[in-house]
Amino acid sequence: MSESAYKEMWENLNLDIAAHDGLLEVLGKFYGDIYMTQEGRLKGMEYLDFVLSEVHGLRIKELMDAKAEGKKIIGTFCVFVPEELSLAVDAVQVGLCAGADAGTEAAETIVPRNTCALIKSFIGFKMAKICPYTESCDLIIGETTCDGKKKAYEAFGEMAPMHIMEVPQRKEASDRILWKSEVLRLKDKLEEVTGKAVTAESLKKGIKIVNDKRRALQRLNKLRAAKPTPISGRDVLLINQVSFYDDPIRFTQSINTLCDQIEERIAKNEGIVPENTPRLMLSGCPMAVPNWKLPYIIEGSGAVVVAEESCIGTRNSRDLVDESGETVEEMIDALCDRYMKIDCACFTPNNERMDNIKALAKETGVDGVIHYSLMFCQPYTHEAFKVEKTLAENDVPMLAIETDYSMEDVEQLKTRIEAFVEMIS
Amino acid sequence: MSESAYKEMWENLNLDIAAHDGLLEVLGKFYGDIYMTQEGRLKGMEYLDFVLSEVHGLRIKELMDAKAEGKKIIGTFCVFVPEELSLAVDAVQVGLCAGADAGTEAAETIVPRNTCALIKSFIGFKMAKICPYTESCDLIIGETTCDGKKKAYEAFGEMAPMHIMEVPQRKEASDRILWKSEVLRLKDKLEEVTGKAVTAESLKKGIKIVNDKRRALQRLNKLRAAKPTPISGRDVLLINQVSFYDDPIRFTQSINTLCDQIEERIAKNEGIVPENTPRLMLSGCPMAVPNWKLPYIIEGSGAVVVAEESCIGTRNSRDLVDESGETVEEMIDALCDRYMKIDCACFTPNNERMDNIKALAKETGVDGVIHYSLMFCQPYTHEAFKVEKTLAENDVPMLAIETDYSMEDVEQLKTRIEAFVEMIS
Ligand code: SF4
Ligand code: SF4
Ligand code: SF4
Ligand code: SF4
Repeated sequence: MSESAYKEMWENLNLDIAAHDGLLEVLGKFYGDIYMTQEGRLKGMEYLDFVLSEVHGLRIKELMDAKAEGKKIIGTFCVFVPEELSLAVDAVQVGLCAGADAGTEAAETIVPRNTCALIKSFIGFKMAKICPYTESCDLIIGETTCDGKKKAYEAFGEMAPMHIMEVPQRKEASDRILWKSEVLRLKDKLEEVTGKAVTAESLKKGIKIVNDKRRALQRLNKLRAAKPTPISGRDVLLINQVSFYDDPIRFTQSINTLCDQIEERIAKNEGIVPENTPRLMLSGCPMAVPNWKLPYIIEGSGAVVVAEESCIGTRNSRDLVDESGETVEEMIDALCDRYMKIDCACFTPNNERMDNIKALAKETGVDGVIHYSLMFCQPYTHEAFKVEKTLAENDVPMLAIETDYSMEDVEQLKTRIEAFVEMIS
Repeated sequence: MSESAYKEMWENLNLDIAAHDGLLEVLGKFYGDIYMTQEGRLKGMEYLDFVLSEVHGLRIKELMDAKAEGKKIIGTFCVFVPEELSLAVDAVQVGLCAGADAGTEAAETIVPRNTCALIKSFIGFKMAKICPYTESCDLIIGETTCDGKKKAYEAFGEMAPMHIMEVPQRKEASDRILWKSEVLRLKDKLEEVTGKAVTAESLKKGIKIVNDKRRALQRLNKLRAAKPTPISGRDVLLINQVSFYDDPIRFTQSINTLCDQIEERIAKNEGIVPENTPRLMLSGCPMAVPNWKLPYIIEGSGAVVVAEESCIGTRNSRDLVDESGETVEEMIDALCDRYMKIDCACFTPNNERMDNIKALAKETGVDGVIHYSLMFCQPYTHEAFKVEKTLAENDVPMLAIETDYSMEDVEQLKTRIEAFVEMIS
């Protein structure tokens, strides 16, 4: 599509064209610096480079075409919203988590300054009119996971069509009941918005598509852990990020193709970095596009990231939905079971996360863990203490980082991370 | 009781005597400055002065005596924990919310720095071993109201016997079901810990006692709103604070006696301040003993506080439990209904709070509202925006304050509050 056709599309979405041009320019430069400078990248990453270069172009055009065909666009901020249900009503689900400082000043007129950067970012993107995904949405699903989002959605909901799902805070039988009623309420809402019914056939297909995506990511996560690691942490993070807005079937195919290439590389015992490079796990809050700050610093400090314990990482692909259900009721139950396994820090207690981190550290053979929390994120900053303790019991050193989307602390983070990498080398 | 007998009692509770002496000294001085310097106080306030002077003495002795008789002490941090149930198993319920900077450094080794002062305070009190209430408890009930407390209880729970109640986040039928199951789970736990059963008779009595306390506080809240106001805001705050740990029957009697005196004063058209003194409402986070900073500043700035929209204020006494139930089941339902009316900012949406604030502002004829949030409190800092908007629609000016327990910002707060008072005068 031509530049001018894109511009027209963005204007139709009511974007602020000047501000949006500014964002694309920064994004492009940032991507160039962080991604295109890497050496020895796999051929399959060209697909990801293309997707990212067209993130506000071709993919938005696809969404517009889908809308023209009568499909609805469903926006989300959290892995608790079952994409299976959106697919079952023939809708397109896209992640709206935002990873850049933009519109922050405007955001701070409606949410407190002491709010995490991710929240300020999606509010800022909306107020500055620079996110074509947000503007494409026919419905946006919020959830009550953390206080910050729960309350920010009240303000956000005055600017966009929202539906809030309640995520319970414990994992007892009574919570499973509440959660099921919320999943059913979402199903009703999606049926209402799309005018289409969730059928046994459509839901089965949705479950299969999303499971296939998870299986491809599981395969990738397994392969990346090879020694020497065949792919950079930055690249895998990008793949996880893209998994939230690319077409799921096409995405799955591309990742499987990439995995074939990785297997070839592993067979030749080739790595993206020397075998003795310190191997790290990133754990904590999700990193939304274009929040590549920390992996870039880490991988510029002589270490490599071989595991991401986060929602834009293993937390989103680890568990599959049981595929044996035949009726809608059975499949809804299977969905509920799978989603209640999510080990988000919003639960209390959340001991499964400790178990999962221990297991992942062992499987991937990491030399250390960097725990990453966004500043003012209560759930993850609290849990960092517990993660550190758990890892210490298993002799895995951990560094706790609290940061935001600004570049002000880059030098300070570099110093701390280099010291940590040196310590574990 | 003699000083040395108290000391022995504190030692038996395993308090850090030196640190505890330090706390009492500061508390005494602070109380003297803020309370005893007031002129024209009501005679009935002597009871409160006495209770506060014996807050770690006689009242703790009573708790020890109760324990010696086989009663259990139940600690709480939130008005969601039904005192009715504790009374129904013949236990004593005490509030453990803490309002002083103490043990903060220790607390920050197990919870994040960016945690609200109230949480750091109760963790700090525990770690510094200076709170005889916390140390007296046989069971401490936490709740999942805010992320900060929800996650801090995990750390706290490693130092004290805890039970966590899940408070739902919306107010739909499914939430009422979850809440009821949590109330029943609490009942089971209390029965287990005390070895006593909740009976129709004991629960009816518990409901009556707590309702009577609420009725006395309602009476006080109504009387204080007279013009000119007969009692200082500081004194009413103190009464609300004491309501969380004094014996409920004795407390109710004393408050009713005080109210009799207030009625006499009102009949004589006497006020604690001149009739034209600007009248303010305080709204927001609860203020725990000895957090008297803000009312002291306000009432030193030429205004008077005539309403507290907070949990240590009207939110805790506004709604009564229906007393018509005869069976345990009926009474549990009545409890559930009443507690689900609490308009805490942890709910989404929480429009009832807006309605209640509007109504309270009207009833008490305030000239303005000071919204008070503890720094890093997500629920209330977010809701401050909504409260301001609601009040503006009703032409009531509002000043939003975010602070903590330190004295560092006192001068800055004074300046802002004086300017606000001047503006509304
Ligand atoms: S970290 Fe928790 S709240 Fe955030 S996306 Fe994951 S599950 Fe949702
Ligand atoms: S990073 Fe933390 S505070 Fe921010 S949206 Fe996620 S869970 Fe909430
Ligand atoms: S403000 Fe909310 S969390 Fe705090 S005591 Fe009140 S009801 Fe509980
Ligand atoms: S003041 Fe806010 S953050 Fe602190 S305990 Fe209360 S609700 Fe939680």
